[in-house]
Amino acid sequence: MSEPLADLRVAVLGVGLMGSYHAQALATRVKGVTVTVINDFFEPKAQEVAAAIPGARVVTDPIEAINAEDVDAVVIATPGKAHEDQVRACLQRGIPVLCEKPLTTDIASAYQLVQDELATGRTLIQVGFMRRFDAEYVQLRELIASGGLGNPLIVHCTHRNPDVPPHFDSEMMIRDSVVHEVDAVRFLLDEEITAVSVLKPTPTSSAPAGFHDPMIVILETESGRIATDEIFVRTGVAYEVRTEVVGEKGTATIGLDQNLIRTGTDGRWGGQISPGFVQRFDGAYHTELQRWADAARRGTVDGPGAWDGYAAVAVCEAGAEAVRTGQRVEVAMAKRS
Amino acid sequence: MSEPLADLRVAVLGVGLMGSYHAQALATRVKGVTVTVINDFFEPKAQEVAAAIPGARVVTDPIEAINAEDVDAVVIATPGKAHEDQVRACLQRGIPVLCEKPLTTDIASAYQLVQDELATGRTLIQVGFMRRFDAEYVQLRELIASGGLGNPLIVHCTHRNPDVPPHFDSEMMIRDSVVHEVDAVRFLLDEEITAVSVLKPTPTSSAPAGFHDPMIVILETESGRIATDEIFVRTGVAYEVRTEVVGEKGTATIGLDQNLIRTGTDGRWGGQISPGFVQRFDGAYHTELQRWADAARRGTVDGPGAWDGYAAVAVCEAGAEAVRTGQRVEVAMAKRS
Amino acid sequence: MSEPLADLRVAVLGVGLMGSYHAQALATRVKGVTVTVINDFFEPKAQEVAAAIPGARVVTDPIEAINAEDVDAVVIATPGKAHEDQVRACLQRGIPVLCEKPLTTDIASAYQLVQDELATGRTLIQVGFMRRFDAEYVQLRELIASGGLGNPLIVHCTHRNPDVPPHFDSEMMIRDSVVHEVDAVRFLLDEEITAVSVLKPTPTSSAPAGFHDPMIVILETESGRIATDEIFVRTGVAYEVRTEVVGEKGTATIGLDQNLIRTGTDGRWGGQISPGFVQRFDGAYHTELQRWADAARRGTVDGPGAWDGYAAVAVCEAGAEAVRTGQRVEVAMAKRS
Amino acid sequence: MSEPLADLRVAVLGVGLMGSYHAQALATRVKGVTVTVINDFFEPKAQEVAAAIPGARVVTDPIEAINAEDVDAVVIATPGKAHEDQVRACLQRGIPVLCEKPLTTDIASAYQLVQDELATGRTLIQVGFMRRFDAEYVQLRELIASGGLGNPLIVHCTHRNPDVPPHFDSEMMIRDSVVHEVDAVRFLLDEEITAVSVLKPTPTSSAPAGFHDPMIVILETESGRIATDEIFVRTGVAYEVRTEVVGEKGTATIGLDQNLIRTGTDGRWGGQISPGFVQRFDGAYHTELQRWADAARRGTVDGPGAWDGYAAVAVCEAGAEAVRTGQRVEVAMAKRS
Repeated sequence: MSEPLADLRVAVLGVGLMGSYHAQALATRVKGVTVTVINDFFEPKAQEVAAAIPGARVVTDPIEAINAEDVDAVVIATPGKAHEDQVRACLQRGIPVLCEKPLTTDIASAYQLVQDELATGRTLIQVGFMRRFDAEYVQLRELIASGGLGNPLIVHCTHRNPDVPPHFDSEMMIRDSVVHEVDAVRFLLDEEITAVSVLKPTPTSSAPAGFHDPMIVILETESGRIATDEIFVRTGVAYEVRTEVVGEKGTATIGLDQNLIRTGTDGRWGGQISPGFVQRFDGAYHTELQRWADAARRGTVDGPGAWDGYAAVAVCEAGAEAVRTGQRVEVAMAKRS
Repeated sequence: MSEPLADLRVAVLGVGLMGSYHAQALATRVKGVTVTVINDFFEPKAQEVAAAIPGARVVTDPIEAINAEDVDAVVIATPGKAHEDQVRACLQRGIPVLCEKPLTTDIASAYQLVQDELATGRTLIQVGFMRRFDAEYVQLRELIASGGLGNPLIVHCTHRNPDVPPHFDSEMMIRDSVVHEVDAVRFLLDEEITAVSVLKPTPTSSAPAGFHDPMIVILETESGRIATDEIFVRTGVAYEVRTEVVGEKGTATIGLDQNLIRTGTDGRWGGQISPGFVQRFDGAYHTELQRWADAARRGTVDGPGAWDGYAAVAVCEAGAEAVRTGQRVEVAMAKRS
Repeated sequence: MSEPLADLRVAVLGVGLMGSYHAQALATRVKGVTVTVINDFFEPKAQEVAAAIPGARVVTDPIEAINAEDVDAVVIATPGKAHEDQVRACLQRGIPVLCEKPLTTDIASAYQLVQDELATGRTLIQVGFMRRFDAEYVQLRELIASGGLGNPLIVHCTHRNPDVPPHFDSEMMIRDSVVHEVDAVRFLLDEEITAVSVLKPTPTSSAPAGFHDPMIVILETESGRIATDEIFVRTGVAYEVRTEVVGEKGTATIGLDQNLIRTGTDGRWGGQISPGFVQRFDGAYHTELQRWADAARRGTVDGPGAWDGYAAVAVCEAGAEAVRTGQRVEVAMAKRS
Repeated sequence: MSEPLADLRVAVLGVGLMGSYHAQALATRVKGVTVTVINDFFEPKAQEVAAAIPGARVVTDPIEAINAEDVDAVVIATPGKAHEDQVRACLQRGIPVLCEKPLTTDIASAYQLVQDELATGRTLIQVGFMRRFDAEYVQLRELIASGGLGNPLIVHCTHRNPDVPPHFDSEMMIRDSVVHEVDAVRFLLDEEITAVSVLKPTPTSSAPAGFHDPMIVILETESGRIATDEIFVRTGVAYEVRTEVVGEKGTATIGLDQNLIRTGTDGRWGGQISPGFVQRFDGAYHTELQRWADAARRGTVDGPGAWDGYAAVAVCEAGAEAVRTGQRVEVAMAKRS
């Protein structure tokens, strides 16, 4: 009889909203993981999170945390500016890393990480595009790949948040929100995005002056397909993420309202819309973490990689320029080697 | 006790697909109407339709049909080129007319009809935008008008046909199909459309070479709202017309798949999509005709008028140019006097 | 060219809720009909309804109304007790009649009308089971008949009203509400109902003391199939009529919530449930009246007949006894000759 | 910093369909568990399952497995006849046990286990009613408990399997299938079931002679509420489990078809129905196991207990008699001490 693998010892860097969610999930729901190290630039927050996780301690310096003896793999949920150095430290030590998007905050550094990982001869970088682990996206991709819709021609995306912090401006809508559709479209269509345009309808009155909310983002792909994305982050309604693929032989839609509990009261039928991304994608996050941990125990990762992170940075860069200029902007991206 | 009104005696001009549908509906389902005259440039077709309608006879010349003694009102379903003269003849005789879209085939002549009708001092022209009589569109407009969605910011339209004749090219997709969304958006938002752009994704392989099918049409309105319209006329699936309005306080969608009969067989649940526009809009056509006839018995009309017909021509003209040039085209339209 | 048929001149007997709805529909929406005579035991109500219908006058005596020179056909919407004599007068005069359910209020008299009509050698009696004209019921019956579900084994019915008058007791729930499922089950399965049982769960607190609301009615058919019917008439919610047929090869359901206008607001998706039977079955009533009128102009009727009325009376009689006794009651019915 | 708890060492008894599913889930997806012992009366099957789980070995005798030094808790998925002795052995050793339903195969022995557990002064027995961990059931129970539906009066259940082994007779339909609705109704309404009746419509032609499939089971509760359950185990369609609660103020339904991926192809819209219970309830099983394991590490259980197992046995005993006799049968159950 073979021995069970030892637990994967994980350091979590950055324990804001996303990082503390990950730390908690890793500690309580992800099989085969022990969270040993917590790091945050705001140390009291790190202390608070570590205190709730038996076996976890705080390491103040992120690079030191990555290199701690009792760390086999790293989850990075720090601000984007910090990602480049932290991911590179993981590469240098040769341990698997799950880095929340964006991989880095500019095209050149993202591309450099792609090259750095290639130089290691291993696959160590995973980027946190959790939708690729959502059962609906997975099935939709399979349906497309199976030819069930014929050649896909158009993708319609909808991405709505009930609200965001006041400083969440039009560029952040591209880099933090639309980035998910950028990756989803690449995942579903298996090709690169080559140009971005942005339409700016009358903004909602709850948007600060000068902010464009909602917007309609138009993505063009290598082969000439088009994806549209309505991004609206102050709807006041709920969290809605919907994708419809229109193919030559039919259409398929995911993210529609679910009948989980359907009521008939006061003259109306209906149900609750997902209040936030945690409720909508909790299963996807769980699968992402479990599969990442399972792979990390074997010294690798299992999900979207450095190239996907780089491509997303490049497309969002073009998107941000399209917001600023009002023009269609071509994506500047290297050929994949 | 008052006497019941005498029946309205109607001439139907043009009895192709749409005109013979109208003639049949007027003769069998519309209260207070007698179809007395049938006209078609292809006389055998006129004879065939007239033969099935007790009391109807054929008149060979359309203008003569309009001026026949036993005609109180006219339905025009002839090719668009013929509309201008025929509508003008109705104005000259001073009788109500229901003219299928387009009102005319160019902006100048449409505008002239607007002026001609104004000169009569009466309201005699109705244009056949039947969606304004569909219960779902009516409710959606009321919901918007009531403020239930807050200020509407975006309208997403989908318009899909299972198939079209081979000669149905990209410009016809604008003038014959998108024209319905042009009117629907004006109806829902109560303002004019000021610019049109057209996106052309990879065409479906069943489209003839050089035809852009599907397309995504982008409409901008006076106040800065944006409407998108996916027009796809060779889906091979069914007839789908869907509209989602996104407002500051919520969204509303019409044209979703209906549960009229929902089956669970062979491992799948589902239902039938409307096979064609007649099935989808039969109720709207019926209401349109009944309300038009009721009004015509009182010497007027009750629905979208000459101005709506003119505006649709102007927007579609811009749309056709946008298809040809690939550019955003501003709509050339007079101010409403 | 053939002459159009003259209008059918109709007398409407009983202009309470249902009768005035019919009178109004016949006068304004049903092609080929002139309402000439209005009758009601409460004459001021008859005067009021007649005043709104050009060409209509009041006749005080119902039998006189049936026999008026300017009456070609009759719609009966008087209280059930009056039906027997009025229907018989129509048979005696040999004119078509559309009689609201119940055909009569006891089995013997209903059976006698069946015999009386047979003696005329014509088909003159139609009973107002409007669901047979609802598009969903018609499609469901066709689906069953086509074998699409295999042999149907079970029918689940739901019949809910938002509220009823205070005197609406458990027996009335059988005779006035469940009667529609009795006919629908016979229509869908094409066989007779042979026994009835009634289950009485805890009543809703808004039901008067001693009233059983809701109830579950169990119908057994000749061939051994079973139909269940939840009847709940004080839900406070809306009007819900749903039918699910369970067959050997699959299931089909009608009356599900419709997406006519689907909103997403305040964290919830949903739509309106039909507030009442008029909204739910307006189309069915219209089709019923139009087809009845079309047939009546040819001297016959086109819908459920005297036998269907008789069968419904017999089953409801058994149902009422089942309510009283708490026992399973077999239906006493003649064999069809 | 506190130390993480040691893993729970689990023995799985019985590795047929359900047991091997549990063993696999515990070994790969349930945090904090090591599967150390596998047992099955058919030893080659036990060897095969153990071989796939690092750290697991086979123990031939079930009681020996329960008492093994490296076993902290037990999952029982052996045939029902074996449950009594195995559960008792767990009680005697004082370790937590998750026993698949039925708790035992007769009322007396189930009651004895209730008493035996009481005698230990601990809560060690959990019964595998996994629906209590399904998010939809949990939300429905919360909605009822919150008063959102008013007093619940009726529960409508539907339970359909695509197929079953040939020997699955009417009594097994009660004991193995309806048992889930028995527990679900008790869970939702928080009261005991007091009587059972069974209706037997025309059986499906794929049912062996003398088998009643489908059946309609009627459950009455202490307070007078009624639950209906359509049980149909050879539908040939898919796995459908639906529950509608009808309350004084409204209704709520769970188990409706989900829009996970909704297609529009070939003139139809629709989606896949869950093919089997594993797909439908995978999340519920996972939650059940994780919560059980979390509790077992603290020496207790967290879910439906011995009393719930006993009540289900008592109601199913009455149900089986109702099938045999065609009569309403009262449930023989002790008062809860």
